[in-house]
Amino acid sequence: MSFTLGVPDDRFEQRKPKRGLITKLEIRVVSLAKLALQPGGVVWDIGTATGSVAIEAARLVGQTGRVFAIEKNEEDVAIARRNVARFEVQNVTVVHGKAPAGLEEWPDPDAIFIGGSSGSMAGLIELAVERLRPGGRVVANVATIENLQECVTALKGCGWHADINLMQVARSKPILNLTRFESFDPVYIVTGSAEAPPEPAGGEE
Amino acid sequence: MSFTLGVPDDRFEQRKPKRGLITKLEIRVVSLAKLALQPGGVVWDIGTATGSVAIEAARLVGQTGRVFAIEKNEEDVAIARRNVARFEVQNVTVVHGKAPAGLEEWPDPDAIFIGGSSGSMAGLIELAVERLRPGGRVVANVATIENLQECVTALKGCGWHADINLMQVARSKPILNLTRFESFDPVYIVTGSAEAPPEPAGGEE
Amino acid sequence: MSFTLGVPDDRFEQRKPKRGLITKLEIRVVSLAKLALQPGGVVWDIGTATGSVAIEAARLVGQTGRVFAIEKNEEDVAIARRNVARFEVQNVTVVHGKAPAGLEEWPDPDAIFIGGSSGSMAGLIELAVERLRPGGRVVANVATIENLQECVTALKGCGWHADINLMQVARSKPILNLTRFESFDPVYIVTGSAEAPPEPAGGEE
Amino acid sequence: MSFTLGVPDDRFEQRKPKRGLITKLEIRVVSLAKLALQPGGVVWDIGTATGSVAIEAARLVGQTGRVFAIEKNEEDVAIARRNVARFEVQNVTVVHGKAPAGLEEWPDPDAIFIGGSSGSMAGLIELAVERLRPGGRVVANVATIENLQECVTALKGCGWHADINLMQVARSKPILNLTRFESFDPVYIVTGSAEAPPEPAGGEE
Repeated sequence: MSFTLGVPDDRFEQRKPKRGLITKLEIRVVSLAKLALQPGGVVWDIGTATGSVAIEAARLVGQTGRVFAIEKNEEDVAIARRNVARFEVQNVTVVHGKAPAGLEEWPDPDAIFIGGSSGSMAGLIELAVERLRPGGRVVANVATIENLQECVTALKGCGWHADINLMQVARSKPILNLTRFESFDPVYIVTGSAEAPPEPAGGEE
Repeated sequence: MSFTLGVPDDRFEQRKPKRGLITKLEIRVVSLAKLALQPGGVVWDIGTATGSVAIEAARLVGQTGRVFAIEKNEEDVAIARRNVARFEVQNVTVVHGKAPAGLEEWPDPDAIFIGGSSGSMAGLIELAVERLRPGGRVVANVATIENLQECVTALKGCGWHADINLMQVARSKPILNLTRFESFDPVYIVTGSAEAPPEPAGGEE
Repeated sequence: MSFTLGVPDDRFEQRKPKRGLITKLEIRVVSLAKLALQPGGVVWDIGTATGSVAIEAARLVGQTGRVFAIEKNEEDVAIARRNVARFEVQNVTVVHGKAPAGLEEWPDPDAIFIGGSSGSMAGLIELAVERLRPGGRVVANVATIENLQECVTALKGCGWHADINLMQVARSKPILNLTRFESFDPVYIVTGSAEAPPEPAGGEE
Repeated sequence: MSFTLGVPDDRFEQRKPKRGLITKLEIRVVSLAKLALQPGGVVWDIGTATGSVAIEAARLVGQTGRVFAIEKNEEDVAIARRNVARFEVQNVTVVHGKAPAGLEEWPDPDAIFIGGSSGSMAGLIELAVERLRPGGRVVANVATIENLQECVTALKGCGWHADINLMQVARSKPILNLTRFESFDPVYIVTGSAEAPPEPAGGEE
């Protein structure tokens, strides 16, 4: 089951009836891009759920890289581990627990993905700022305006930059011989970095 | 300049004053995901412009893979080649020409990206269907409803499946101490494949 | 039950279990705006379903205006009539039938809304162009790319202009003490007129 | 110049080179709908700019209704007044000033539109809650996440409900004989009311 990027959502085992909680392909790959992963990097995945981001990150950092994933829901931990096995990635560790508890045992990361903050967004951001190696990134997927505000405020409070993508994605769905669209609910992808990102409009180097 | 995925737009040299024609990061990485690239794969990039998709695809297919890119605008060809050099990818060939002319000399691909069709969408899709290896994908970025219709109709006419993403993406932009958003214009990412994609809602395997 | 514009969706009786087929408030009011209704105008509503657009249009054209609505589903006809009674609009006529059958008995309109075309989009557009009074508008709500293409092609084939809004709307939804969003599926609002609409960017008069 | 709803943006005189600051038609009419205007109602328009919302609201509340508009920029005040004259609405008063200064002289409103808060969002919301008549609504157009948070927090702090629309709207734009789309930047329409709005999914009455 060889792939490099963009595993279809339904290739991951998901919890029933909570399907749909997976980080959807389009959101997942933009989040991975924003993590600015490098070969050999160390990645944390907080609230890993199905493990989809951890698994794809593991491929991108390669065999010299490592991914540490944490998930508070026990059933999801088992599912994430089965997905890790299914995709035969060797460099992912899935831990059962509620972040930030347990993160003190992990090596300092180059990139942190926050898929679920369970009400601890500000604390997780502060921990990220403290633990990330120089040049590191923290990327959070946020669905609510309150978590968005908390995440951005925490980043700015640490003197970090917050760059946000508002993603509205629809997928086509056949209806008889016609083609309509189904929208996902909007997701904010917040990227925190010590250095300001380059201007979106682009400037010569 | 090591990276694995998601080069910021402004790291690529772009044509002036036509900046903004680059396949933007968010659209680029979803397109790359939809191409379902595998290590060692052969990729065609039609209408490569800055070469941004070709360069990122080259990283994903790895050193055993190859990327062939074509661009009709001579200035863009030079820019794409300089970008290839800048990112030190060894497996990208940039050709000056207007597809489909010249494509007969390239090896059959595993994946085809169409960034610009220059009015030949139907012909390019038919060529893609003819030349793609088994299991291959063609992914087109489409901005107009006419090209969307032509692309989908051509795929269906070949008995292929068309899967579409409608992408509405906004990026945050600081304004004084506040954070507003700037929207990109909507883009359709059309993915053609011989086999129907799995159900978006997902089913157990 | 006095109101001027923007009846909440759930104030209309809707068919079970087909709820959600109503023209949603945000789409409905933009469609009404695009119809460019004037006091005393004659409006056709094709595929009226719950009658929501007909009822709001009736208020906007006032007591000297008239709205003619047609619906092929018998149960919906009864629902639309009950909604008309509920909102106490006197100037709406709801007819059971499948357009264009029956439209020949209606007076020439100033504005036509097509909420559902039932596979007859091109024919309905041609009829609209034929029957609309000078300066009149036809506005269609379209969910599929095929109907979008058919609608725009038919308008252009008649020498008319097609102006399209792509609407991606999300509504907030409380989740515990947080606020997330639910997206509607994207809708195209196509406005056909004999004269080109003014430039979106606006110019001095 | 008869109309009932949805004046095209370029029919309003706008400040140069600040064009585009007008409340765009699609956002304007949804905001008007959310205001739940009734014939004879009193409306406040805070930060009226071109006067576009005030003018359309004036039509909707009718000759027995009144609209009071305030604008801090002197040039915009003159423009708004010229637009009021152009559209021949008799029931709009445009005042030069920075809200909340001056609002104490206006009669209690049935509806308040906040197009621009100039950094006083929380104070304006509190004033709205204090001054709105029973059943009244306050609707704010918000572009930044900070104002969004401040607006929603202020409403909740007053025990009011906040209902939000996230609007992503694109308009078609011809390019040669093709049709592409231009996106507006996303806008949040926040509606505050003492009573919770009905469930979006709708329930029988």
